[in-house]
Amino acid sequence: MPAQRLFLDAGGRLPISPRTADALRAGLADGWADPRRLTTESRRARALVDGARGAIAEVLGVHHDNVHLTSSVPLGFERVIGGIYAARRGRTRIGVSAIERDLVLEAASFVSSGAVDTFEVDAEGHVDLDAVRAGASHPDTALVAVQHANHEIGTLQRLDEVAEITTTAAVPLVVDATASIGHVSAPEHWDALIADPADWGAPAGIGVVALRPRTRWLPHWPESSDPWAPGALSVPLALAAAVALQERMENLEAEARRQHDLVDRLRAGMARTVGVHLVGDAVERLPHLVTAAFLYLDGEPLVSRLDREGIAVGSGSACGKAAFEPSHVLAAMGALTHGNLRIGLHPGVTDQDVDRFLAVLPRVVEHVRDSMSA
Amino acid sequence: MPAQRLFLDAGGRLPISPRTADALRAGLADGWADPRRLTTESRRARALVDGARGAIAEVLGVHHDNVHLTSSVPLGFERVIGGIYAARRGRTRIGVSAIERDLVLEAASFVSSGAVDTFEVDAEGHVDLDAVRAGASHPDTALVAVQHANHEIGTLQRLDEVAEITTTAAVPLVVDATASIGHVSAPEHWDALIADPADWGAPAGIGVVALRPRTRWLPHWPESSDPWAPGALSVPLALAAAVALQERMENLEAEARRQHDLVDRLRAGMARTVGVHLVGDAVERLPHLVTAAFLYLDGEPLVSRLDREGIAVGSGSACGKAAFEPSHVLAAMGALTHGNLRIGLHPGVTDQDVDRFLAVLPRVVEHVRDSMSA
Repeated sequence: MPAQRLFLDAGGRLPISPRTADALRAGLADGWADPRRLTTESRRARALVDGARGAIAEVLGVHHDNVHLTSSVPLGFERVIGGIYAARRGRTRIGVSAIERDLVLEAASFVSSGAVDTFEVDAEGHVDLDAVRAGASHPDTALVAVQHANHEIGTLQRLDEVAEITTTAAVPLVVDATASIGHVSAPEHWDALIADPADWGAPAGIGVVALRPRTRWLPHWPESSDPWAPGALSVPLALAAAVALQERMENLEAEARRQHDLVDRLRAGMARTVGVHLVGDAVERLPHLVTAAFLYLDGEPLVSRLDREGIAVGSGSACGKAAFEPSHVLAAMGALTHGNLRIGLHPGVTDQDVDRFLAVLPRVVEHVRDSMSA
Repeated sequence: MPAQRLFLDAGGRLPISPRTADALRAGLADGWADPRRLTTESRRARALVDGARGAIAEVLGVHHDNVHLTSSVPLGFERVIGGIYAARRGRTRIGVSAIERDLVLEAASFVSSGAVDTFEVDAEGHVDLDAVRAGASHPDTALVAVQHANHEIGTLQRLDEVAEITTTAAVPLVVDATASIGHVSAPEHWDALIADPADWGAPAGIGVVALRPRTRWLPHWPESSDPWAPGALSVPLALAAAVALQERMENLEAEARRQHDLVDRLRAGMARTVGVHLVGDAVERLPHLVTAAFLYLDGEPLVSRLDREGIAVGSGSACGKAAFEPSHVLAAMGALTHGNLRIGLHPGVTDQDVDRFLAVLPRVVEHVRDSMSA
């Protein structure tokens, strides 16, 4: 008899809580009208969007005027990086850490026609501050992008130090917080920030952008109306995003401690498996993520075999691209780029679930190893 | 005691049917996972998206491989126009009808750096076929965009004739069907087509693009993965879009006849009001839309006063931009550009509702006229 499914792939998407599903339903009932029009129905929809922006702004520590809801997370990256670049006329280069998301790397390369400087990271994924300093002080640098936390390995960047460098150099700092908001406190120092509601338990299909009032930004795109949510926004998704975030924030610290401990157990348990290398900073990290690289194995059969055992985990570059392209994140850290598993916990995952995974893993690894040498 | 709200602003957004709301709920329960990954949860989400694409493709009369779901309608326009333009290297100009949506005009102007040729329309909104012929046969023309139906005035273009011209000239024809799919049969002749699920009764936040297999298209954008739905799609919205469309198609002809008759009554009733000009083709039109221009009046007080009477109608350019900018559609037809109301019927609107609107309208017009001359 198959055991109940165990979902350990919570990075970017996860099961929706009843409260968030209720918010979506309420948003559909009261927010179906176009928020840009003048009737009672539209005013009601607009009030829901404004409320959602306000709730998210509070978590990010900014005024709600400085928060924009976008029709997708990639659009948020594109608009932020493109708009800040456009406002920094004459400065042609963009500096990024080597382990930024594909979305950041691709937007930076597109916007700057390939004039991207990559800052190396150490074996735990921390960006080289000297490299950031050199990049930020280069007179051609339009902006610098360094993530808050990495979506594959969980390592938290030392953003205070990064921001001190970019502030001194008077270069805007774009912070990808798509893997961290809802899991740890929002970072304090940034000029532009992007967040992903689907990562904190809202339905996918909406993005969040925050810009400091001082951050210069120019539209660089056809739509004359709202550059962030052209064609206007899904009001139900906006409401669900805000409610899901509030639900997370109510219990942020206790849940982060609980998940941090579970990941410690996962790391310790997996470390006992032969040929496993645990990637990323064991301490300065997201509470809920861990990636392990398995020597001589491929990621795909590991994921598939675990799936047949009823356990969903991630692998490879966590999002976008074909699932099993070698991860540029792991390559930049000098880690194994094949044979890696990413485990992401959601609030429903228990001690027993972790034990179940750890009990199944050696058998799965052995099976995959046998089938590869067969 | 205020009467029940009457929603007559159904163009682009309308109340969600119970069946569509159920589909969204089911999509949330079974489609929260990332459709791009390899686990059971992701396969289930992917199956829902594939099913939704298939259902929509059937209505459009194409294979499901030729239908792409996009994370927003404007993104669909931008990708289609930009990608076809990119594939037609060396050809620099874009031809558009004068009454295309802002989204089309803005994307065309952005992509071609302003090299846009505008085809005039007659007093009923039909595009000048000689102008299309001249534009399509110009050696620099990369593509031509002519809408299926206009979202403000409802006029249906004679797309068979337009397509004959573009086919002869071997120029791709982009058809904006965002106001027509779900209301009348899909057009038969086009090279690329864009549709809007929110216009047929699905929750907003997703777009539909169809490309013929023969249509050459090049990506021109950073994302390396899926140019249509970067960061992947909202599966619940995809499912709701398909279910809402199926619901419409089951009853398409009877409902179109019913709404066509209601609009005939609206046109006849409004024509009796002094100083009213009915815009657009009275026969070759969408079944559910009518725009009336009121001499010497502004649109905003009319909408607001009707709203206070419990009736929601639209005005001005129907979507995007500030609500009360003069409409370029009406200007192109030589109609009054101020003081216009747009009425859009949804399936719940009855004969009695139309009577109620027609009974209230003269009083509202008189009130607004008095307050303006006061």
